[in-house]
Amino acid sequence: MKNNKPTILVVNDDGIDAPGIKVLMDTMKDLGKVVVVAPDGPQSGTGHAITIAKPLRLDRVHIYPDIEMYKCSGTPVDCVKLAVNQVFKGKKPDLCVSGINHGLNHSINILYSGTMSAAMEGAIEGIPSIGFSYDDFTYDADFSKCVPFIRAIANQVLEHGLPAATLLNVNFPKTGAARGIKICRQANAKYAEEFDERLDPHQRNYYWLTGVFQSGDKGEDTDVWALDNDYVSVVPVQFDLTAHHAIPILNSWQFDVKA
Amino acid sequence: MKNNKPTILVVNDDGIDAPGIKVLMDTMKDLGKVVVVAPDGPQSGTGHAITIAKPLRLDRVHIYPDIEMYKCSGTPVDCVKLAVNQVFKGKKPDLCVSGINHGLNHSINILYSGTMSAAMEGAIEGIPSIGFSYDDFTYDADFSKCVPFIRAIANQVLEHGLPAATLLNVNFPKTGAARGIKICRQANAKYAEEFDERLDPHQRNYYWLTGVFQSGDKGEDTDVWALDNDYVSVVPVQFDLTAHHAIPILNSWQFDVKA
Repeated sequence: MKNNKPTILVVNDDGIDAPGIKVLMDTMKDLGKVVVVAPDGPQSGTGHAITIAKPLRLDRVHIYPDIEMYKCSGTPVDCVKLAVNQVFKGKKPDLCVSGINHGLNHSINILYSGTMSAAMEGAIEGIPSIGFSYDDFTYDADFSKCVPFIRAIANQVLEHGLPAATLLNVNFPKTGAARGIKICRQANAKYAEEFDERLDPHQRNYYWLTGVFQSGDKGEDTDVWALDNDYVSVVPVQFDLTAHHAIPILNSWQFDVKA
Repeated sequence: MKNNKPTILVVNDDGIDAPGIKVLMDTMKDLGKVVVVAPDGPQSGTGHAITIAKPLRLDRVHIYPDIEMYKCSGTPVDCVKLAVNQVFKGKKPDLCVSGINHGLNHSINILYSGTMSAAMEGAIEGIPSIGFSYDDFTYDADFSKCVPFIRAIANQVLEHGLPAATLLNVNFPKTGAARGIKICRQANAKYAEEFDERLDPHQRNYYWLTGVFQSGDKGEDTDVWALDNDYVSVVPVQFDLTAHHAIPILNSWQFDVKA
């Protein structure tokens, strides 16, 4: 095992200099050979965006001298694509980990999350992939209590692999999750958005996206329930979005196509 | 019915002045009261990105004088959120249609597509939502053969609604789809990415994302098969990404959490 250490790609959406990714790369150093490819600045909320209308930069940097690190001008998904193609040159890493995000990515928020989209891109590339997020969006968040859980989860993924075409979405409660790990489903819950409307100095309107998280999903098998009850939530996620149960319903419809 | 026309939100990712959205709004005018909220420029490949680090603009415009139109400085998903909150003021439209995209959004490409992410955001808001995409990415694409199918599909959705928490991904083959409509699953297929590496005038590397579409999925029930065989593909899509089948597997793992 010592002679055949796994290679681990580390990515995030808060940017290469965020404290959360430092904790993740330090944790992964104990498990394998770490390569970091991360955005050169904050990319929160970029979801599964890719950069196609302009070129990308990818530059070797030496922020932490003992780790091979690259910063990228694009999105978290661009980082994974560039890592696989330009850094690993097609020889895929054994694991892709994303985060630790400063802030939760539970329930429907996985769709908006650059952290989770990077992990999903890893899974699309066939790499066992995990996204990690912590319920503290501040710069000075204390991620130390997440570390034993990250190590345990990553070790299990390295040992077993993941079911085909799936990845893991791991969220940590603010307490540091003393009560253990819960395997969950994604809660049917979302932010109730509001826009804060303001006037600029030229008397033109502008809007800030804001909102309050609301969950009407009272199930005790959800990520929201787990986090509310001081568990680490682990949701297996898939990227086949087909609503298979809806196919027979649509097949019963009569489409009246008139030229 | 004449006195109670449905309200229809039209959005896209190619920008408010793209020919594809003009065809879609003209088609929807026959079915209901149309309101357009679309990006002020191209937003292809933005996926489910939202704008949180800067404010948004939303301005009434009069490109086509008989239609209520707003242009937005944000992403396609921002457009839907602003439409629901600021334009419809919480009184949700009866239908949300996105497109017609200049270019296909089949298989895994739904994840990267601003067109489909806008439709998905409509569905998350509880609005019956459909994304339309055509196999011609040129500005001068001839969308006319798509129109009868769009009308037939939108009419069925207005009549039946859609199963809870689902939306439709509709793609048109280049021929104009003379052979009819196929209800499909998303093909397990993706682009094999490559990066075109170049040197700028200052001798620094930069990269253009490029790639070739590859499908190893030979199923005849997929969107890729339908399009290859001159059918209109209709995939029901869901935004619950939980891989439910993986939950018992993960529950069998032993997590060794050591502080």
